[in-house]
Amino acid sequence: MSWLRLIRSRRVGVVTFWRLLEEYGSARAALLALPEVARAAGVEGYAPCPEGVVLAECKAGRAAGARLLCRGEPAYPQALADLADAPPVLWAMGDPAVAARPMVALVGARNASSLGTRMARKLAEGIGQAGYTVVSGLARGIDAAAHLAALPTGTVAVMAGGVDVIYPAENAGLAREIAEKGLRLSEQPPGLEPLARHFPLRNRIVSGLAAAVVVVEAAARSGSLITAKTALDQGREVLAVPGHPFDGRAAGCNLLIRDGATLARGVEDVLDGLAAKAAPLRASRPSAEDAPGRRAAAEVPQQAPAARPKAELRALHRRILDRLGPAPLAEDQLIRDLAVAPAAVAPELVALELDGQILRHPGGLLSRAV
Amino acid sequence: MSWLRLIRSRRVGVVTFWRLLEEYGSARAALLALPEVARAAGVEGYAPCPEGVVLAECKAGRAAGARLLCRGEPAYPQALADLADAPPVLWAMGDPAVAARPMVALVGARNASSLGTRMARKLAEGIGQAGYTVVSGLARGIDAAAHLAALPTGTVAVMAGGVDVIYPAENAGLAREIAEKGLRLSEQPPGLEPLARHFPLRNRIVSGLAAAVVVVEAAARSGSLITAKTALDQGREVLAVPGHPFDGRAAGCNLLIRDGATLARGVEDVLDGLAAKAAPLRASRPSAEDAPGRRAAAEVPQQAPAARPKAELRALHRRILDRLGPAPLAEDQLIRDLAVAPAAVAPELVALELDGQILRHPGGLLSRAV
Repeated sequence: MSWLRLIRSRRVGVVTFWRLLEEYGSARAALLALPEVARAAGVEGYAPCPEGVVLAECKAGRAAGARLLCRGEPAYPQALADLADAPPVLWAMGDPAVAARPMVALVGARNASSLGTRMARKLAEGIGQAGYTVVSGLARGIDAAAHLAALPTGTVAVMAGGVDVIYPAENAGLAREIAEKGLRLSEQPPGLEPLARHFPLRNRIVSGLAAAVVVVEAAARSGSLITAKTALDQGREVLAVPGHPFDGRAAGCNLLIRDGATLARGVEDVLDGLAAKAAPLRASRPSAEDAPGRRAAAEVPQQAPAARPKAELRALHRRILDRLGPAPLAEDQLIRDLAVAPAAVAPELVALELDGQILRHPGGLLSRAV
Repeated sequence: MSWLRLIRSRRVGVVTFWRLLEEYGSARAALLALPEVARAAGVEGYAPCPEGVVLAECKAGRAAGARLLCRGEPAYPQALADLADAPPVLWAMGDPAVAARPMVALVGARNASSLGTRMARKLAEGIGQAGYTVVSGLARGIDAAAHLAALPTGTVAVMAGGVDVIYPAENAGLAREIAEKGLRLSEQPPGLEPLARHFPLRNRIVSGLAAAVVVVEAAARSGSLITAKTALDQGREVLAVPGHPFDGRAAGCNLLIRDGATLARGVEDVLDGLAAKAAPLRASRPSAEDAPGRRAAAEVPQQAPAARPKAELRALHRRILDRLGPAPLAEDQLIRDLAVAPAAVAPELVALELDGQILRHPGGLLSRAV
């Protein structure tokens, strides 16, 4: 319950959630410290998410027939747990067993060609028969074709909004079948209507769940390319189905292949790609309400915001904000540019995020709020 | 003239030619030594190519309006001169200036699709406009489309048979135009009708002339894939135009890309590939009638065949032949397998080739004659 309160608290994103958990040892302690952290960052009167709000969320989830999974619980998907920006909680509808098997993500264009949907079907069937769960985003086109073909073997749909909010409406029947035979997942509260900013967040879960991401058909500058980029950042194998350069719907896939993605001609290539990637995943799953993390208990946070002179902090905040613009920048890069110890920068980034001055994006990216 | 006699001598392939030239310092000396080398290899009564035969070849070449280029002469194409299996001589018809510019090879299927021929035309035009000469093999389909589109900017056709023997006949008009505005080349004697075995030899010249080889459309197990493989062995940049996996005519190209060839969506990708490859070529052009080569004059051949006991040589021959089958094996690999000093093996390979027991193939491969 403290986890849900912390992640639903205003301006606490996923990365900040894990950082606070590491810093304060538990979500409960972080919730207690949060008003003080906000005050040190110049935000007066900050209050974490009220208990009543999360009680209502839990009630809505139960009413929808969904179940809450926390990172660290056995039912929480292993591959996702290994991400730095793993969702602390997931709402799940359906059979959690399909999420216990290794997964392959199939993603692609909403306005797919018939060649594209045929390929998505063929890949989903073959990948399912090989024992993998097929994960996708329940969008039109490639996503829907992949889910449908993988229903008999197992499929996971990651929703951009609430786990009970079907978008697009035309996939309502498919969504119902997935909740019966497969699994629907969402990190958002039940009932939430998806907004544009929820889709890249959803995509990081699609790729994060999977050992490999296959882009079936995608134009240049499409969302599937962002998913592929995120997948690479997550250390996932990325494959793409090529097409003739005169076919615009192949432009995104050809670009990915040119930039190093593995060319996928069919299911064998995907299985080969998985075999090549078969190195064991890192095992670092902090359990609920107790986050040992990398920063051990012995290592007391030396740079607690309140302990530093205000002027010095203001100067650091200014330097951070000067280096950030509306285009996301990698946190690593920012810290290198600042030439300040990472341990000194991290709490200030939390403070600036709580203050609403910076935004966090999937893949360890930061931008300035505008 | 001695060069032409040596390369036209029975069982003297290109690699043997350069080895004899290194060993004996000149083609004339090699011709004198050849009967003795053959005798040591167990071939009695071996005679090099008679002088009359090469005089007749030269006469036929002149009658066809062709000119003989020897490796080391300024008109001999630089890129080709750097190959270990460079043709010692080439017959040329047309304007040697087009061969002085850097070249790009365009190769592909004879039964090309309309997408394929359109792409070949587009690439040939763009590559020509960027200042490169387009080289190909004057076959049907992709080759013919590429030559035709590059006629205004410069094109080289490498013939599998004699430089004056047009195959296929339907390309006679194109071949005539290439001899007027471009250049036709062949390492074979004028008048020779091409046989199956001449095509891979021709293909090594196509790729050898070029800085990059672009495979435009190719089925699996097609000749274009062998050209691409040869090009890689020659250190050439290999690019391929992708297609949808459901289109069989894209299978060879997709395979190449999967195996590491650069994906080519259009002329920009080819030019990018060339820029990436722009490291200077090695400069090692032994000039005609005087081959300093890597084995310097000071380094006297220590393992001349006649100097080794017959029984020992027979045992080595037996071991070499035991390791070779009809499928070509890399010479490097063979020497490693034998665990005998390369300097001891090389003259025996020459002896076995002269004896007709082994065959040499492009790319440093050997097989057993069957």
